[in-house]
Amino acid sequence: MSTAHVIALDAMGGDRAPEIVVAGANVARLRYPGTTFRLFGQPKKLEKLLGRFPKLAADTEIVPSEMVIEPDMKPSQALRKGGQSSMRMAIDDVKAGAASGIVSAGNTGALMAMAKLALRTLPGVHRPAIASMIPTHRGESVMLDLGANIDCSADNLVQFAVMGAAFARSVQGLSHPTVGLLNVGSEESKGHEEIRRAAEILRSAHLPLEFYGFVEGNDITEGTVDVVVADGFSGNIALKTAEGTASMYTDFLKATFRRSVFSKLGGALAKPALHALFKRFDPRRYNGGMFLGLNGVAVKSHGGTDAKGYANAIGFAVDMLTHGFNEKVIEDLELLSHDTGIPAEVAAQ
Amino acid sequence: MSTAHVIALDAMGGDRAPEIVVAGANVARLRYPGTTFRLFGQPKKLEKLLGRFPKLAADTEIVPSEMVIEPDMKPSQALRKGGQSSMRMAIDDVKAGAASGIVSAGNTGALMAMAKLALRTLPGVHRPAIASMIPTHRGESVMLDLGANIDCSADNLVQFAVMGAAFARSVQGLSHPTVGLLNVGSEESKGHEEIRRAAEILRSAHLPLEFYGFVEGNDITEGTVDVVVADGFSGNIALKTAEGTASMYTDFLKATFRRSVFSKLGGALAKPALHALFKRFDPRRYNGGMFLGLNGVAVKSHGGTDAKGYANAIGFAVDMLTHGFNEKVIEDLELLSHDTGIPAEVAAQ
Repeated sequence: MSTAHVIALDAMGGDRAPEIVVAGANVARLRYPGTTFRLFGQPKKLEKLLGRFPKLAADTEIVPSEMVIEPDMKPSQALRKGGQSSMRMAIDDVKAGAASGIVSAGNTGALMAMAKLALRTLPGVHRPAIASMIPTHRGESVMLDLGANIDCSADNLVQFAVMGAAFARSVQGLSHPTVGLLNVGSEESKGHEEIRRAAEILRSAHLPLEFYGFVEGNDITEGTVDVVVADGFSGNIALKTAEGTASMYTDFLKATFRRSVFSKLGGALAKPALHALFKRFDPRRYNGGMFLGLNGVAVKSHGGTDAKGYANAIGFAVDMLTHGFNEKVIEDLELLSHDTGIPAEVAAQ
Repeated sequence: MSTAHVIALDAMGGDRAPEIVVAGANVARLRYPGTTFRLFGQPKKLEKLLGRFPKLAADTEIVPSEMVIEPDMKPSQALRKGGQSSMRMAIDDVKAGAASGIVSAGNTGALMAMAKLALRTLPGVHRPAIASMIPTHRGESVMLDLGANIDCSADNLVQFAVMGAAFARSVQGLSHPTVGLLNVGSEESKGHEEIRRAAEILRSAHLPLEFYGFVEGNDITEGTVDVVVADGFSGNIALKTAEGTASMYTDFLKATFRRSVFSKLGGALAKPALHALFKRFDPRRYNGGMFLGLNGVAVKSHGGTDAKGYANAIGFAVDMLTHGFNEKVIEDLELLSHDTGIPAEVAAQ
């Protein structure tokens, strides 16, 4: 399958922009041959940085933009005043068809608001959602929504299931991913009305996924299902709780190996094995918040990541394009509308 | 302060009942001198078990009950058919005033349903909540609601804040515990209407607590606040996600030390330090789901715990009684009703 895609990069977004954006693009260029870039930001800085990577420079076009969306800017403010920002211009580049995907490590709220406004949603999609990969006992799973939608109807949750499964099929190559709805118990009677109705729809629908039923918080890291679907409120809380717990455990573990001469020596001997453990949970591996359901591909990189992590975020955008993620979502929502007898556009409401 | 309390124990609830219930009571008796027990269950078994602990036997009265609430029994079924069960009879013992608190390691849903029906709520409390201690970077925090209430109004959340703070004051001895509402961001505009309204009420109320504002999932283990208040849906998901993440990390860590001869040796050298780490996260330390807001003290022990863990659950009941937890809740809800100008009974609705 061809991977010759043009990716628009918001070169000015993120804690260490534009340095890691350019360095990340250089890593991604080697991993995904044929991929080219359109780099939005301050031309003098970008030219200087590209000078260090002549091969990347040959595959990259700089598009000048002097304005930067600040990390604390409100989405509404970004919409009003950010028209000439590197973030907005990179998004508009996808809308205009010059690029097929956009990656930014900048302000999440501004990115979502501007991407929604400029790209709009895919036919049939009512609300976009944020998805991410998460480490599990078995490997990794997809989880969504991670905070784009505070209140979710049954139909929203069903659409998230469709999008999450299409993502697992595209990026992980699973043919019939298992999908679970995040709830407070596994019995059919558990949870609020919307989640129970979403389960009913998913149980009877004919989609390229296997609906597992309800899953609980501990099932996320257990890897019980390939795709965990949640409303944006509890999904965001679950993700951040998992991150906080892992970080606490790592800190205590490091302190453990400083406790005595013996434990220091023990830590030194076990260093290669411990290194493998930390690598397993390396946040760079899971760097990339995918905005699913937009008419275009948009990926949010963590603001504090490094070149490798940024390259992973670019990788998700490339994979979604290469494997036709958006086309799969459109097809599956049409399948769903056949099941329910309601046109996709209306079923989405 | 006197700790001479009578605790009713559902001797038949839990995976290893009645053995660990009796062994747990024996541990608790030594820790909390003066505490006596009323043991509900099958007398022949209980007499035999008590034979091993003559001092405990002298402080314990057996109340015969042949019926056991099964782990898979629905709450509605338990309410209809469980009148003569060890669980229900132990609860009714608190209602009758023969005991001041009840501990059970049995079916959670049945325990909550029967305790609510038999004990009713404290004056002014609209809905009871389940609370637990959780390990954090700084030590430990209180978190509630962990699943008793799926949908929560602003007033419910405010009452949970009052109860959680009263628990931290009673059991942890904090004079003005910090309280945070679990949300998807720290800005005042974040989250749904009910949580924003709860924050408004807590900001202006005059209560023996310090309202911190909104906290996020990662703040739970960070120990940002002494008391984390959540609706039962996201609170349950957060707790189980944290448990799952910690368990995944522990499993990977153990596998890490089996990887090579060096890492095995390293693990052996660091064993005392690692032991301290595992002890830090020992689930037995945090064993006890407190049903707050009931007219009586009720604690749920984990079904699979051991004698030490069961003794910890008894310890929470003893602490709540010793430090007048329920009296504090009644007082604070009255303070709140002065602030809002609405009588406590009505404010609770």
